[in-house]
Amino acid sequence: MAYTDRVKQILSWYPSDNPGTLTNLARLLNTGTLAGTGKMVILPVDQGFEHGPARSFAPNPAGYDPDYHIQLAIDSGCNAYAAPLGFLESVAGKYAGEIPLILKLNNSDTLGKPEHPMSAVTGSVKDAVRLGCVAIGYTIYPGSGYRNEQYEALRDLIAEAKDHGLPTVLWAYPRGSISKEGEQAIDVISYAAQISAQLGAHVIKVKPPKDFLEQAEAKKVYEKFNIPTKTMSDRIRDVVKSAFNGKRIVIFSGGESKTTEDLLEEIRQIAAGGGFGSIMGRNAFQRPHDESVKLLKDVMNIFKNAK
Amino acid sequence: MAYTDRVKQILSWYPSDNPGTLTNLARLLNTGTLAGTGKMVILPVDQGFEHGPARSFAPNPAGYDPDYHIQLAIDSGCNAYAAPLGFLESVAGKYAGEIPLILKLNNSDTLGKPEHPMSAVTGSVKDAVRLGCVAIGYTIYPGSGYRNEQYEALRDLIAEAKDHGLPTVLWAYPRGSISKEGEQAIDVISYAAQISAQLGAHVIKVKPPKDFLEQAEAKKVYEKFNIPTKTMSDRIRDVVKSAFNGKRIVIFSGGESKTTEDLLEEIRQIAAGGGFGSIMGRNAFQRPHDESVKLLKDVMNIFKNAK
Amino acid sequence: MAYTDRVKQILSWYPSDNPGTLTNLARLLNTGTLAGTGKMVILPVDQGFEHGPARSFAPNPAGYDPDYHIQLAIDSGCNAYAAPLGFLESVAGKYAGEIPLILKLNNSDTLGKPEHPMSAVTGSVKDAVRLGCVAIGYTIYPGSGYRNEQYEALRDLIAEAKDHGLPTVLWAYPRGSISKEGEQAIDVISYAAQISAQLGAHVIKVKPPKDFLEQAEAKKVYEKFNIPTKTMSDRIRDVVKSAFNGKRIVIFSGGESKTTEDLLEEIRQIAAGGGFGSIMGRNAFQRPHDESVKLLKDVMNIFKNAK
Amino acid sequence: MAYTDRVKQILSWYPSDNPGTLTNLARLLNTGTLAGTGKMVILPVDQGFEHGPARSFAPNPAGYDPDYHIQLAIDSGCNAYAAPLGFLESVAGKYAGEIPLILKLNNSDTLGKPEHPMSAVTGSVKDAVRLGCVAIGYTIYPGSGYRNEQYEALRDLIAEAKDHGLPTVLWAYPRGSISKEGEQAIDVISYAAQISAQLGAHVIKVKPPKDFLEQAEAKKVYEKFNIPTKTMSDRIRDVVKSAFNGKRIVIFSGGESKTTEDLLEEIRQIAAGGGFGSIMGRNAFQRPHDESVKLLKDVMNIFKNAK
Amino acid sequence: MAYTDRVKQILSWYPSDNPGTLTNLARLLNTGTLAGTGKMVILPVDQGFEHGPARSFAPNPAGYDPDYHIQLAIDSGCNAYAAPLGFLESVAGKYAGEIPLILKLNNSDTLGKPEHPMSAVTGSVKDAVRLGCVAIGYTIYPGSGYRNEQYEALRDLIAEAKDHGLPTVLWAYPRGSISKEGEQAIDVISYAAQISAQLGAHVIKVKPPKDFLEQAEAKKVYEKFNIPTKTMSDRIRDVVKSAFNGKRIVIFSGGESKTTEDLLEEIRQIAAGGGFGSIMGRNAFQRPHDESVKLLKDVMNIFKNAK
Repeated sequence: MAYTDRVKQILSWYPSDNPGTLTNLARLLNTGTLAGTGKMVILPVDQGFEHGPARSFAPNPAGYDPDYHIQLAIDSGCNAYAAPLGFLESVAGKYAGEIPLILKLNNSDTLGKPEHPMSAVTGSVKDAVRLGCVAIGYTIYPGSGYRNEQYEALRDLIAEAKDHGLPTVLWAYPRGSISKEGEQAIDVISYAAQISAQLGAHVIKVKPPKDFLEQAEAKKVYEKFNIPTKTMSDRIRDVVKSAFNGKRIVIFSGGESKTTEDLLEEIRQIAAGGGFGSIMGRNAFQRPHDESVKLLKDVMNIFKNAK
Repeated sequence: MAYTDRVKQILSWYPSDNPGTLTNLARLLNTGTLAGTGKMVILPVDQGFEHGPARSFAPNPAGYDPDYHIQLAIDSGCNAYAAPLGFLESVAGKYAGEIPLILKLNNSDTLGKPEHPMSAVTGSVKDAVRLGCVAIGYTIYPGSGYRNEQYEALRDLIAEAKDHGLPTVLWAYPRGSISKEGEQAIDVISYAAQISAQLGAHVIKVKPPKDFLEQAEAKKVYEKFNIPTKTMSDRIRDVVKSAFNGKRIVIFSGGESKTTEDLLEEIRQIAAGGGFGSIMGRNAFQRPHDESVKLLKDVMNIFKNAK
Repeated sequence: MAYTDRVKQILSWYPSDNPGTLTNLARLLNTGTLAGTGKMVILPVDQGFEHGPARSFAPNPAGYDPDYHIQLAIDSGCNAYAAPLGFLESVAGKYAGEIPLILKLNNSDTLGKPEHPMSAVTGSVKDAVRLGCVAIGYTIYPGSGYRNEQYEALRDLIAEAKDHGLPTVLWAYPRGSISKEGEQAIDVISYAAQISAQLGAHVIKVKPPKDFLEQAEAKKVYEKFNIPTKTMSDRIRDVVKSAFNGKRIVIFSGGESKTTEDLLEEIRQIAAGGGFGSIMGRNAFQRPHDESVKLLKDVMNIFKNAK
Repeated sequence: MAYTDRVKQILSWYPSDNPGTLTNLARLLNTGTLAGTGKMVILPVDQGFEHGPARSFAPNPAGYDPDYHIQLAIDSGCNAYAAPLGFLESVAGKYAGEIPLILKLNNSDTLGKPEHPMSAVTGSVKDAVRLGCVAIGYTIYPGSGYRNEQYEALRDLIAEAKDHGLPTVLWAYPRGSISKEGEQAIDVISYAAQISAQLGAHVIKVKPPKDFLEQAEAKKVYEKFNIPTKTMSDRIRDVVKSAFNGKRIVIFSGGESKTTEDLLEEIRQIAAGGGFGSIMGRNAFQRPHDESVKLLKDVMNIFKNAK
Repeated sequence: MAYTDRVKQILSWYPSDNPGTLTNLARLLNTGTLAGTGKMVILPVDQGFEHGPARSFAPNPAGYDPDYHIQLAIDSGCNAYAAPLGFLESVAGKYAGEIPLILKLNNSDTLGKPEHPMSAVTGSVKDAVRLGCVAIGYTIYPGSGYRNEQYEALRDLIAEAKDHGLPTVLWAYPRGSISKEGEQAIDVISYAAQISAQLGAHVIKVKPPKDFLEQAEAKKVYEKFNIPTKTMSDRIRDVVKSAFNGKRIVIFSGGESKTTEDLLEEIRQIAAGGGFGSIMGRNAFQRPHDESVKLLKDVMNIFKNAK
């Protein structure tokens, strides 16, 4: 395994975790093209649950098949593949050990309309253990009227996961009592990263922030201390700093599908700003296979060459 | 360890607690510059969660790093360092045993807008035990529409903590069906201290009260019996008396950041009024390191020299 | 990871195991110099417990240090490192994820003199999970008056291990109501391999058998059907066949220390007979570091080049 | 499925069992060539554990492979295949649902020499459930100094099995404080069948009894009441009657290997005496594949044509 | 607290323990006269249970009083005080936090005569937590016919203690199938230290070894490799090396009472050989108070000045 000084340094930031949890965190960092670099690219496929199958898979119908995605993650050299229970059930026994798996424990569909943003917990830590996963995944909606319930359920899941040697990857999507634009405001994204780290997440996934400040109190501080937010790399730097001064792994989603060049430029900025990697779903699996493999490899190259 | 008559006296006020809980209470009292005096100064850093990272750490960016705060608490001779789960996870294994830790079990962010003031329980007693803490911390909002839920959750946490030999530090912030000014009214703060003691807290943390009376019924009594509330030390005396006639440890926060001289004057008044100490977050860690060490030492000196 | 057709074939022999258990079995097969070949060389260091520290470590005093052995296993490209609780406690948190670990759950010292051969269970499945192990190890003594107790304890441990995604490596040492020579008799070793497979072991470790038949009933059959037992490779073939026709992984210990050439010749025979690999303790760690690394690499080369 | 009046009648003899247990009993009765007849032929392969691999599989080396036996049971139209944990682990996931499986929960090897006949419990009811079995199997040694321990362990296993809807097939081998010849004495075998039924077995497996009376007290009665024991069918009738007047399913083993004609003649007698079927291991799997398929089909024909 | 580089180094040898366990280990190392030196002197008083009150306390009748011993440990600057449940119950609430306590979980009286050496478990981990202890204590008798039962009970206690943040101090007394002289033979004591470390003990307590070799196999090795055993410091060096090359804390008992000068000379040898400290019961508490305080301080000085 690619066991580098950088990986050892990253593991040293989690001094209170048991060796089992550190071992699985190391597996995440030591797999695929980016093994040993301290960077990671993860393929997540939860859109079938979140947006429905047609919106998710019609652009590249091969994606209706659960085998397609794990094979795509392997082919492109990803660090891990993340999905809800059903997708993992359909592949874990067949691909046992070929690539680290992350079980997304909660998921939200767009058929129901909860009073406040809220996912259902559709998998368990025991499922993750049984399926041979290296981590659990969980989504919080900071700003939601139900955020406390989400944080409290997460607390128990993190504790149970640690008991079984599993670290936690936390998806943090500010949503609810926040303006639409504010959901990706730099102050809000950085705040979400801080909350995620304080809740005990090992890896934090947020959206790339925009040059916008949502909260009046925060705006004053950003302006007073001249915290730069103009370029994407400026903002990435602020988010990473907000996650324990870079001592928690923060990775960024690609967000909505866009042109390849726009996407790669965004990745360059994320890498320049010190982002630890990308979690790229739709932008990958909705393209034809070879195109998405090429895209993911281009993304990995950018992170590999970042200083 | 500095095991003085004063510490023995304080411990004698908790005659129903088991030796494990008393031992950890003694550790709190027997650490740092104020060891053995019966006074305590605690560094709490939960603002990253409560106010967001920029508002908390931009004034002194070293504070983005979780190592900074525990080291600051050690450098300045504090009795303990208090923080939410994530901040403690990132340092407990590395600084094991260097300074008493208090795990703040519940925390409230300012992204969500709950109907009534309400924190999420983001840590557990088992976390506190695993991380080697000497106490749990918890926040109640007397006056909140959800205060009963908070009191009832606290009841279970205190009981579980005692089973594990951990005393409870209770943050009491009147809020909710109270006027903005009333949140620091002397009658309200004293009432909050009484509730905290009745709920079973070992250490009670309130804001320094103002010379204002919120509740009409209370106002009548304060006036009828000429309870002095003019000076800060008058009011501190009333709060301490309200916490079982001084038989519960009551400490005071510094509140919003202010000039050093204002702050030290307030501390002098707190000490003169019989306050057991300070819990000082933003006023400490938002200054440059050496300045905040000096400030904390000055604060400790005031308490040390108080009769 | 080296995920070859051979590894997939081997995993297909365990069709009733959950993906978690298969994933950890795959990790064992996909690590080190022999990754992907379906062969494995494991470094076990339990002699400190079994024979005492002087007999174990005086020949190469570097071995008194627990760090020495895991580093030796890494340096030489082993598939895994196996040891009792204490040795793993002292390294697991430091080397998290660098090499697969196997926790030997039971161990026998030579200070006590039990009525029948019997080990103490000195570690638990929960320990193995906490320490990030990929498998549990257990020793049975077929022939011992306490063998049924051993089989029954093993049954529970295998079941608990599977629930946590851990396969079982079984050390089978016939001992007790068997002649001294018979402990390595071909019929007895093959029988022990069969029992181990029937008990549910994923990997079986036995001693290299000798050309001797212990049991009268078995002798008749070996002679009647002309089962060849002359050469070591003949006998290895019989043992491997006895473990579900080669559908369980059978590896062989080196036994007592001997000359390098004798040892390598034995390995060649084991490889020629279809053995899946070696578990080599004393013969490795009692030599100086570079010598033992060379030896282990030579052993791996033999298995790598076996057809 | 062939759900006949006869099967309904047989199920009516177990009126206190829950529908789950009856359902699995019905599966046993409704599978294979004898489906619906109320008769059954089971292939058991536990000899690898009980006698060692060479004695068991050398005569027909294809039998070293665990796949061989389940396929043989399917090819020949057996009602079920019974084996210890390891053999079932290696096939259950691959052949799921192709033929009813019976997990033999306890097994005895011939390497150890226990003070009294005693098997080790090497599988659990949870294993049987996990592997999709239709029944558990268990062996008792009436006459053993440890028989009470065996009966008591069985009590718990039957209860646990019923909770999970699994009936129990009981192997009853009188052994211990009984003469060698007496182990198959008619009075002893009938007594063993009675004990088995009283212990709660759903299906009872005994050896074909011989015309010999072991116990003096029993001898007097057999003679006084002229219970016929001359022919095998006489004796089978006595055994079946002893198992609740035929209201428990009693099946017979073939015992040691013998000529085909002797064996078929014995089966004819068993069928004539009212035996419910045969459980035939060595006599089947030690012959070449096609020969043993033919033999098993001949056996089934005899039972099919029995009135 | 005296948090030195040496203490940090010692804690680094336990990389798999949670912060709670490390914190209590640090407390042991950071208390008393030897705080921060990495050395420790512990006062144990279990002789009342082990030898009866007259033999234990008549020489200095003040010792009949449980308050006497904890006060002696405080007065003399010990790192900790160790005793059975009753003695700790009688002082823990009164002296809460004044000195680290170790609850000796098992104890053996000399009224009963067990078949093999065996202690009764007379306290629990929950008792230790309730009483505010920093560690549990446990005694094993390697060589006893009941040693496996002792090791297995210890396994569960260590795991439960770790869950509650408590390290384990292990008393290892070889006894049973060992000659009287052999109980302190250098090979046996070193072997006992190795077993203790492998079982997961954090601190190991053995008797000072004698220049005698008990086991024939070990004798050969000591002679072949010229392991020096002449002087006490030679032997101490061998024992410390045998406990993970000095990476486990090994302390030595004073054994039977002797003259002060003999005792101090022995301590000098223990310190010169790299022993981590002493655990001194009878030799301390059976002298008049001031004499024993002086003795303990002299002992501490020797360890303090050892390089």
